[in-house]
Amino acid sequence: MLENKPRVVVVGAGFGGLEAARNLAKLPVQITLIDRKNHHTFQPLLYQVATAGVSPGEIAAPIRWILRGRSNVEVIMDEVVGFDLNRKTVQLQDLNLPYDYLIVAAGAQHSYFGHDEWEPLAPGLKTVEDALEIRRRVLLAFELAEKEAVAGGPHPTLNFVIIGGGPTGVELAGTLAEIAHRVLQDEFRSIDPKRTRILLLEGGPRILPTYAPDLSESAVRQLQKLGVEVRAPAMVTKIDPGAVWVGEERIPAAVTLWAAGVAASSLGGKLGAPVDRAGRVMVNADLTVPDHPEVFVVGDLATLKDKHGNPLPGVAPVALQEGRYVAKTIAGDLQKSARRNFHYVDKGSLATVGRAAAIAEFKKIHISGYFAWLAWLFVHIFFLIGFRNRVIVLVQWAWSYFTYERGARLITGDTTLPGWPNAKSDSEPEPPLRK
Amino acid sequence: MLENKPRVVVVGAGFGGLEAARNLAKLPVQITLIDRKNHHTFQPLLYQVATAGVSPGEIAAPIRWILRGRSNVEVIMDEVVGFDLNRKTVQLQDLNLPYDYLIVAAGAQHSYFGHDEWEPLAPGLKTVEDALEIRRRVLLAFELAEKEAVAGGPHPTLNFVIIGGGPTGVELAGTLAEIAHRVLQDEFRSIDPKRTRILLLEGGPRILPTYAPDLSESAVRQLQKLGVEVRAPAMVTKIDPGAVWVGEERIPAAVTLWAAGVAASSLGGKLGAPVDRAGRVMVNADLTVPDHPEVFVVGDLATLKDKHGNPLPGVAPVALQEGRYVAKTIAGDLQKSARRNFHYVDKGSLATVGRAAAIAEFKKIHISGYFAWLAWLFVHIFFLIGFRNRVIVLVQWAWSYFTYERGARLITGDTTLPGWPNAKSDSEPEPPLRK
Repeated sequence: MLENKPRVVVVGAGFGGLEAARNLAKLPVQITLIDRKNHHTFQPLLYQVATAGVSPGEIAAPIRWILRGRSNVEVIMDEVVGFDLNRKTVQLQDLNLPYDYLIVAAGAQHSYFGHDEWEPLAPGLKTVEDALEIRRRVLLAFELAEKEAVAGGPHPTLNFVIIGGGPTGVELAGTLAEIAHRVLQDEFRSIDPKRTRILLLEGGPRILPTYAPDLSESAVRQLQKLGVEVRAPAMVTKIDPGAVWVGEERIPAAVTLWAAGVAASSLGGKLGAPVDRAGRVMVNADLTVPDHPEVFVVGDLATLKDKHGNPLPGVAPVALQEGRYVAKTIAGDLQKSARRNFHYVDKGSLATVGRAAAIAEFKKIHISGYFAWLAWLFVHIFFLIGFRNRVIVLVQWAWSYFTYERGARLITGDTTLPGWPNAKSDSEPEPPLRK
Repeated sequence: MLENKPRVVVVGAGFGGLEAARNLAKLPVQITLIDRKNHHTFQPLLYQVATAGVSPGEIAAPIRWILRGRSNVEVIMDEVVGFDLNRKTVQLQDLNLPYDYLIVAAGAQHSYFGHDEWEPLAPGLKTVEDALEIRRRVLLAFELAEKEAVAGGPHPTLNFVIIGGGPTGVELAGTLAEIAHRVLQDEFRSIDPKRTRILLLEGGPRILPTYAPDLSESAVRQLQKLGVEVRAPAMVTKIDPGAVWVGEERIPAAVTLWAAGVAASSLGGKLGAPVDRAGRVMVNADLTVPDHPEVFVVGDLATLKDKHGNPLPGVAPVALQEGRYVAKTIAGDLQKSARRNFHYVDKGSLATVGRAAAIAEFKKIHISGYFAWLAWLFVHIFFLIGFRNRVIVLVQWAWSYFTYERGARLITGDTTLPGWPNAKSDSEPEPPLRK
């Protein structure tokens, strides 16, 4: 049981919530951190799980293990269902938790722009479960194609279609190209994985639109070198099992992946504060909601404009700085000092494209290719939680780099895919004999 | 496409089937290896996945990757539905595969002795999916207990009941004790994981009955030192959600695991050959079925007596030697030499009990404790497939040994457990306020 100190409830253990909790732990407060999962996920490397490069346990760590030494922090794995800002409580399924300060860092999830029926056909990449589902579909597609080809007939069409040219779509496309064109060589007898086409479809005029135009162009060239077909603008109008439509054009798709949009957690709408079109809470300059200086919103769930009037991007550095700021602000409150506004310090942006391919933007300095990739690699391994994870991911990475092998190529669970002949129905009583 | 050489179809890529395929690959034959999974699982370390020590990708490798260099081997991920021994075909869902030689190595699965309704209540450990399900339940039990305790009331009863005192049951019990009593310390605020009880229930008179009695006794002592309560004989008569019954005694169980029995794959019964009580095919001295010298059965699906009249145990060394023997026998057939009978060479047995605890039996030499554990460790890492896996598992292991941390403590998927209050039903509209 925690002592009688100010109670801070933190909702969500992503970058923002976890950073807030870690920094608050040094103060004379009692902290309750609530998350639906038992683990913090290092989202920037999730695409490596989806593409079988590393195992989930290497980029995700139990929240209570991360905070194990902090005796004034408790962790509850549960789902928050609502808030009562007047009574100052957070509502769980079976319990109401009172707070003195509330930090809501519930993040974002995929958005299908009103086409929720597309979700089972084109999974997105936000959680460990999502990554495992993408991995399952990608690997299974090659297995089903080989099975089909063993029976004879033409070479199955193997298109992987990735919708959305932001950082996630680019990472997935680049890495899938490496899998199809290099990793799987010599492993199949009836299909040729090199005949796989990787298509990256971006609805807007260029991929990686938050970067400078010259870096977008460099990313396109690097993707093409890896064997990815980039199409922008190419607005997807329909997704069927086994196909994606761009206007009147039907593109057959063995696997379709969604990296086109996110929307804020629905918890944002339960705070009684104004939200933007993507459901993000429009916070005050101290990251609080109107009339509630004790309620903060941080990370992807919040939206705030920088000094130029541009909204801060939904990236880890913003969430981390916001989490740290909120802890500092509460520390200031406890000492009765006046609050200062949040200011984001932009240290530059990095996006990986694939093997030895990346872009980096540090204000006026734009870097592409191998050196950008090295910078990306070291930044990402450095920020991984846990020394053991850093060592293991580095070993995995070095191994994959030199051998073109990927260490986690397991298919688990269901063995059917949308758009493929269902293995369990309508098979004639006497199947054909192999030629 | 494979050339016009004798066709060998191998069903199952466990130790026996994979070893047969690897050795056959050197011969002028064309080999088709069929498995329901895309990966070979190193079953002796599956309990490490179930107890969050290593990730699945570290003890399982894609079958087609293992055999990537062998151009006369093709791998099909599919389920065999039957055989036609007269027409010499293997029946898949949508295709019949003709063969000249057939090797059936479909292995075994859990058996609930006619109580199939126990399966959802007490999962067993045979596949990667099983291991992830056990991991989910074990980790989730602590989370649900903490959640319950946060609301107030008495300390939740946290019993882990493992049914079956064979090698798997012993490994699970020893490792779960380490998790409860050491790994999770300092991580919970409202429960004390040390109050977890680990019960190992064996229906027969002693655990590890295939070992010498003095080693069984040593294993009991080592388990007790790790904090496991061993009960033998304790025959389970009923399993409820949340409880296990031994006769009239009801033992509350937060998680129940099944390690009590296996039965051969149902494919054994489709060969028209005699099977024993556990469904294993009673093979000839050359591992073939009666009247079909071209049809071999190896591994856990076969049963054969040694020179003393005792059935060979269902362990990896038997399957490996059988697989190798069959490849050699087919090689002999191709050169028209007479067949020789299979003879198993027993090189000793090793069973691990937990951290620095194991037993080893090399004929008259019986070893217990640290040195048996070291022997067990090195044998098992040596036989892991893939150099990368060996390095990573060794790093993980050394790390866990010195820090008492386990690297793969992720809960994914469903967040409910049988026997626990279901999070989604009957919660009163106004939950209580935390005290």
